[in-house]
Amino acid sequence: MQELIKNYETLRARLKAYQYAMYVISWDSETEAPSGCFQERGKQLGVLSEESYKIATSDEYINIIDQLFEKRKKLKPVLAHEITEAKKAMRKMKKIPMEEYVKYSILLSNSQQIWAKAKNNQNFAEFAPILEQIVAFQRKYIAWQETDELKGYDILLDEYEVGFTTKEYDEFFHLLKRDLVPFVKKITSTKLNYNQEFKHYKYKKEKQVKFMDYIMKVMDYDLNRGLLKESEHPFTSGFGTSDVRITTHYYEDLLSSAIFSTIHELGHAKYEQQVDSKLDETNCSGGASMAMHESQSRFFENIVGRDYHFWETHYPKLQKLFKKELQNTSLKDWYLSINEAQNTFIRVEADELTYPIHIMIRYDIEKKLISGEIEVKDLPQIWNKAVKDYLGIDVPNDKQGVLQDVHWAMGSFGYFPTYALGSAYSAQILHAMKQDLDFNALIGKKNLKPINNWLKQRIHKFGSSKYPKDILFDATNEEFNPRYYITYLIDKYSEIYQIK
Amino acid sequence: MQELIKNYETLRARLKAYQYAMYVISWDSETEAPSGCFQERGKQLGVLSEESYKIATSDEYINIIDQLFEKRKKLKPVLAHEITEAKKAMRKMKKIPMEEYVKYSILLSNSQQIWAKAKNNQNFAEFAPILEQIVAFQRKYIAWQETDELKGYDILLDEYEVGFTTKEYDEFFHLLKRDLVPFVKKITSTKLNYNQEFKHYKYKKEKQVKFMDYIMKVMDYDLNRGLLKESEHPFTSGFGTSDVRITTHYYEDLLSSAIFSTIHELGHAKYEQQVDSKLDETNCSGGASMAMHESQSRFFENIVGRDYHFWETHYPKLQKLFKKELQNTSLKDWYLSINEAQNTFIRVEADELTYPIHIMIRYDIEKKLISGEIEVKDLPQIWNKAVKDYLGIDVPNDKQGVLQDVHWAMGSFGYFPTYALGSAYSAQILHAMKQDLDFNALIGKKNLKPINNWLKQRIHKFGSSKYPKDILFDATNEEFNPRYYITYLIDKYSEIYQIK
Repeated sequence: MQELIKNYETLRARLKAYQYAMYVISWDSETEAPSGCFQERGKQLGVLSEESYKIATSDEYINIIDQLFEKRKKLKPVLAHEITEAKKAMRKMKKIPMEEYVKYSILLSNSQQIWAKAKNNQNFAEFAPILEQIVAFQRKYIAWQETDELKGYDILLDEYEVGFTTKEYDEFFHLLKRDLVPFVKKITSTKLNYNQEFKHYKYKKEKQVKFMDYIMKVMDYDLNRGLLKESEHPFTSGFGTSDVRITTHYYEDLLSSAIFSTIHELGHAKYEQQVDSKLDETNCSGGASMAMHESQSRFFENIVGRDYHFWETHYPKLQKLFKKELQNTSLKDWYLSINEAQNTFIRVEADELTYPIHIMIRYDIEKKLISGEIEVKDLPQIWNKAVKDYLGIDVPNDKQGVLQDVHWAMGSFGYFPTYALGSAYSAQILHAMKQDLDFNALIGKKNLKPINNWLKQRIHKFGSSKYPKDILFDATNEEFNPRYYITYLIDKYSEIYQIK
Repeated sequence: MQELIKNYETLRARLKAYQYAMYVISWDSETEAPSGCFQERGKQLGVLSEESYKIATSDEYINIIDQLFEKRKKLKPVLAHEITEAKKAMRKMKKIPMEEYVKYSILLSNSQQIWAKAKNNQNFAEFAPILEQIVAFQRKYIAWQETDELKGYDILLDEYEVGFTTKEYDEFFHLLKRDLVPFVKKITSTKLNYNQEFKHYKYKKEKQVKFMDYIMKVMDYDLNRGLLKESEHPFTSGFGTSDVRITTHYYEDLLSSAIFSTIHELGHAKYEQQVDSKLDETNCSGGASMAMHESQSRFFENIVGRDYHFWETHYPKLQKLFKKELQNTSLKDWYLSINEAQNTFIRVEADELTYPIHIMIRYDIEKKLISGEIEVKDLPQIWNKAVKDYLGIDVPNDKQGVLQDVHWAMGSFGYFPTYALGSAYSAQILHAMKQDLDFNALIGKKNLKPINNWLKQRIHKFGSSKYPKDILFDATNEEFNPRYYITYLIDKYSEIYQIK
């Protein structure tokens, strides 16, 4: 047994080393690599992937997983957890006919480019043929993976968030539809009055950078184990707990953009930095799931970062940096501006309140598309109708409509709902945190350490050694309950918009 | 045969992919990785090295090399060249007893830290014990590697510059000692008169950055296949021709520093960018040798970058950027300041004229140390005496003396002389170039493309598919001749110092 575990750990360490190389190379690609290097880079990454693939599909590795899986009851919990997950992944892989897998991989390697071109040309018809093939694969995939417990779209949903299927999501989105949609309609038809003068100025990048330095300290982000850099689209990228980096993007004509994207990424980064470092060498490092990760980034971006008490403390700092530009803008003006809700077309630019509506629309469509109730060719029409129904606006073209997101071009079905789930988690977590901490007082402090500590102990430290459902239950003493999210949004926006 | 070559190419591609990963990771380490990541990084690099080592020492790989080596006469020249080199490396490796190799690797993994501490403490005695062990290994290594053709220190010299042994270097340094040393004494005892006012100002980094952007254009550096970044010590790092990056370091109180270190690195980078891209997938990519690489960086740094005609064109640009700081500094003042020769302690800070003296001192000492004529414990005394004899100055402490360079702590004996050889190559190359091009006219152009093209055709494009000795001969129609270097220095400095 000890021998078996040792052999497993050796293979795991080898596989991890390839992930590590990929991590550093992809960080370089996203942040600074010169455009001319990518052809060569693609070739080298191909070889490295193959090296890693050979290990992961070797008889030796598969045998070890099989044997350890048989003995999983006798293993320590973390090891048992990762062996169970590895076994599950292998079982799934085995069910995919090799030639179908290869065909699909080739399909995906072209689809993003085709999608990007179609989006640029505002023409869904250019993307439809390849999307049809992707959807066809998804439907076949579901047939291969079907078990007594999981069928249809549930198979895909469960892959992104273990234990979450149409049962849970239907309940969640039904509640949103019933209670939130009418409220959002009311809010977005109400005008928010504040001084908008500050929107007309330019905000020098160098000064914005200084504010980010300040915010990183407030968030207690450990710069010995991370760094902030620029990239086209902000993201967090990490390996274990000792190297978790973030990026942001500065717009001189939109001060709030870099601030909130930085706080969002800092939420992701604090999560990864606060995982128990003992998990670094295991496959249980990093966050528990997409939704749990998103719960942390949105907790900081929206619940913390758009709170009045937070800005009571930090707005003077921002005003001091931009003396002239913000001299006539009060704390209240700023607070209202960063919480204004509007019906818009683009998901990634949506505000906190309307965001889940964008997800709800995608969930409804994906569910029907996978089941065959609707077909690819009808997507633009269905999309535009849903946006009109729920957001009340007319989609001007496919770029601002059905083509806006890359996910389907990547074959990622079942991914979207985790975004809304993450926000819902964060509201439930806030409720639990408030039982233990004086949140309104702590959020006004110069340093968010006590809040971080709570999250570390209840959520972060477990990494992905537990399922998100269990982490949420243990952290909040309750099953997932979307009510907190809806209540949070309605309370917050009722106050901001002075609606009774 | 075709099968054999194909198998070789597959293994070569795998080995290259590991080099590629190491390249990107080490670039990240040197330029931005957070300090806290290095323990984990060391572990991951260890695994990747092992993966690569397993391939390079596999029976399969060794067999293929052996078989191709037997048939090398029938191979295409580039392939024949790399197989010959691979066979040579294997033969050498085989002669090192495994346990000695492991012991030595462990030794080296500690020695740099010990050296750095001793240097910091200005205390050679702290470094002596481990240096003794390193030297002892070098002496044993020589005994293992001895052949009829190569013995003693020659074995080490030949490893850094194939075909260069004590025979060539003795001649070279003898000539330096006889003709250059007395001239340097005369120059360094002469005062150079120019307006030094500009040395008292601060030169804002942002403006220096702008000048580097300008210089990169002048040098015709391809930014689609490279980038300029900052690091503690400037360096060039590349992989193939499609990704060749440089760094520099800005000092606000020393304007010339970043300018000349950038031009130096651009010389290295142009070399690698101009290798025939067909060599990318082979082991003949990159520069031909240390000395040949250094010849290109020094050609641009010293011969081009410190030339009067060069600054006639570009000084106005610099003056425009630093209007106030340079208003009283004439082109002549600037030109004299960047060509002032002084006896100083530190090699890397030495000017063009005194630089080879620093190397000559190291060569004399290394030669005797390896032969056993002198011992490690006597190094500080011998060092200080040589510096007094040749540069006329009293070394104040070991940090500014024998401990200044890291090379010996890395086990790099035979490396130093290539620095001076590089400068000598560059003077010989200049002489040949002047037969074909109107150098003085071209150097005053806004873009150095014609000079780059000449270097590409004569030197760069071959990468390391030919030995440096052969490249030099073919490029200049002559064997290595150090006379050009000495004449170049004496002519240049006689004019600057108005000495007849």
